[in-house]
Amino acid sequence: MQHVYAVIMAGGRGERFWPLSTAGHPKQFLDLIGGKPLIQMAVDRLAGLLPPERVLIVTGADLVAATRKAVPQLPVSNIVGEPVARDTAAACALASAWVAARDPQGCVIILTADQIMEDLDVYRATLRESAAVAQAGGVMVTIGIRPAFASTGFGYIEAGGRWPYDGRIEFFKALRFVEKPDRATAEGYVDCGRFYWNAGMFVWAVSTLRTALGRFRPPLAEMFDRLLPAIRSGSFEAQLAAEYAKLEKISIDYAVMEKADNIVMAKGIFRWDDVGTWPALLNHLPADQAGNVVLGACEALESSGNVVVSKGRLTALLGVKDMVVVHAENATLICPKDRAQDIKKIVQALGAKGAYKDLL
Amino acid sequence: MQHVYAVIMAGGRGERFWPLSTAGHPKQFLDLIGGKPLIQMAVDRLAGLLPPERVLIVTGADLVAATRKAVPQLPVSNIVGEPVARDTAAACALASAWVAARDPQGCVIILTADQIMEDLDVYRATLRESAAVAQAGGVMVTIGIRPAFASTGFGYIEAGGRWPYDGRIEFFKALRFVEKPDRATAEGYVDCGRFYWNAGMFVWAVSTLRTALGRFRPPLAEMFDRLLPAIRSGSFEAQLAAEYAKLEKISIDYAVMEKADNIVMAKGIFRWDDVGTWPALLNHLPADQAGNVVLGACEALESSGNVVVSKGRLTALLGVKDMVVVHAENATLICPKDRAQDIKKIVQALGAKGAYKDLL
Repeated sequence: MQHVYAVIMAGGRGERFWPLSTAGHPKQFLDLIGGKPLIQMAVDRLAGLLPPERVLIVTGADLVAATRKAVPQLPVSNIVGEPVARDTAAACALASAWVAARDPQGCVIILTADQIMEDLDVYRATLRESAAVAQAGGVMVTIGIRPAFASTGFGYIEAGGRWPYDGRIEFFKALRFVEKPDRATAEGYVDCGRFYWNAGMFVWAVSTLRTALGRFRPPLAEMFDRLLPAIRSGSFEAQLAAEYAKLEKISIDYAVMEKADNIVMAKGIFRWDDVGTWPALLNHLPADQAGNVVLGACEALESSGNVVVSKGRLTALLGVKDMVVVHAENATLICPKDRAQDIKKIVQALGAKGAYKDLL
Repeated sequence: MQHVYAVIMAGGRGERFWPLSTAGHPKQFLDLIGGKPLIQMAVDRLAGLLPPERVLIVTGADLVAATRKAVPQLPVSNIVGEPVARDTAAACALASAWVAARDPQGCVIILTADQIMEDLDVYRATLRESAAVAQAGGVMVTIGIRPAFASTGFGYIEAGGRWPYDGRIEFFKALRFVEKPDRATAEGYVDCGRFYWNAGMFVWAVSTLRTALGRFRPPLAEMFDRLLPAIRSGSFEAQLAAEYAKLEKISIDYAVMEKADNIVMAKGIFRWDDVGTWPALLNHLPADQAGNVVLGACEALESSGNVVVSKGRLTALLGVKDMVVVHAENATLICPKDRAQDIKKIVQALGAKGAYKDLL
């Protein structure tokens, strides 16, 4: 794994995990599954693959201190803070420049902090072989997950012909990226067998990304070029502060991946979930006979299909169906399961009122 | 108001008001409406009508100390503890004996602790004139409330011909007591105009009650007779302990009122509510535009018709309709509004498990 680095993007605020996820203690610090914060699990998954010096975390500037504390095995300079959030394209450019300044032949594996995976041996093989493909072919590799069901919550990648590589993992030419589909479309994708979930994991040589940015997003390429000498001279943070806020907010998918023609897809055959909502997260825990999933203390009488996070407090449900109930120390969230993706609306409404700042 | 006493029955556990109502701090100590515990409001309503020495509270033996603290204006010996709960017939016999031992010509107004009333001037006039009717006629007076709507949650009294009495309040011969009706029957009751809510308030001379007990419930009459000398000699509590547990559990309605033929109904034209459930209690507070009633802090987004008690904690609702949410310090109850009368099932289920004793 010469020249290979991993970048964990941990810039999200996790508003859909309010009230346990707050601005000062967002989702990636939650330790509800597996007993460890998500950010630490993301770092641990790389054990044996890369030394800690080659693992970078990009997060919000205000979360750098907390992140350093959560993953003490990383060098402190490997936790980089964005002055403002500018979505994933900017974070990818920044992280790739950070690597390029250290190693012009560097190859970057882009990961995110808020995913849950199993079959870690397969996962690590996928990253290792994706790096080999990216380094050898001057291509950008995206990891597509074999869909477990017809999800309408993920984007998809359509795979084309087999990409020549002889290893444990199969690679395909990526034909196109498609947005989150409606249910019928999603079912068609799964039936036809050529579509894979876009897991937001990418692998590229820094030189390959630089070329793509120059072609599709010149402002990001220019930032990349200016960051290189700044990183080497120790004026990295000042340079970021000077120009990061001016960047447009755009995802790497939309800015580059959907437009480039040199994309290869690794077929991800490990179990993966994005844990974007409370029900999705708690899906990873066993349910009782009535389908209630509980973290903490809950008495569920004539109640079914609920998702309850109730640590240090007893939640009693009577005749309640398909609801999410989450208690934080001083706040409680209640909504139907099928509204869980809208929890950020509550956070935004409270924020707009200027109310309960210490709870947001 | 010579010879008149009031008895406030406060023996209930208020399980439908869990988790704020617990065995050690039941419903009558809740101060959610009006800023005072219900038991104190019940005593306060008698101000100007009776001196404190003539107000008796019958409660559970384990609640005597807390009750004395909640109503310090009463003499401590006026708070009497039942060794075990034996429903209202036993409590009425006990209380009437307590009065009879002090005043053989005594007249007792039976009230309960967990009601909410308005128009207190009318309320007091009703009690005063009911006592006069009971004292004059050797009858038992029951107060019937002019129904505000076709409630299926209360029993009804059918009024017959006018009872001769010239005062502010009208009295009628009570023809019969009927159980909680179904909706159609309740609507018929309200339409016909002869039916009144049975508010569980009764007025009788102690001698009248003794006669009725002798006729309909001899074991209660015998206890009444044995309690008289025991109360006078100071061995009241020992006598109660010796025989109270052996009594059958039966309501005064079923034991006496439904069977006696000397019942007169006072027409109660004050506003009255039994506050038997969380929604009924919070009905007495103003609702927001979406029909949510909140005590404490609640952000209700796209949510309507909810009843929320959230003191010292923010409850955020998203897309939640017609639910009851009540937080106590270490427990939270959630149920649909139309299941609020079954909350005791939760308390019983937890009790049967021997779990969370300190929360029940």
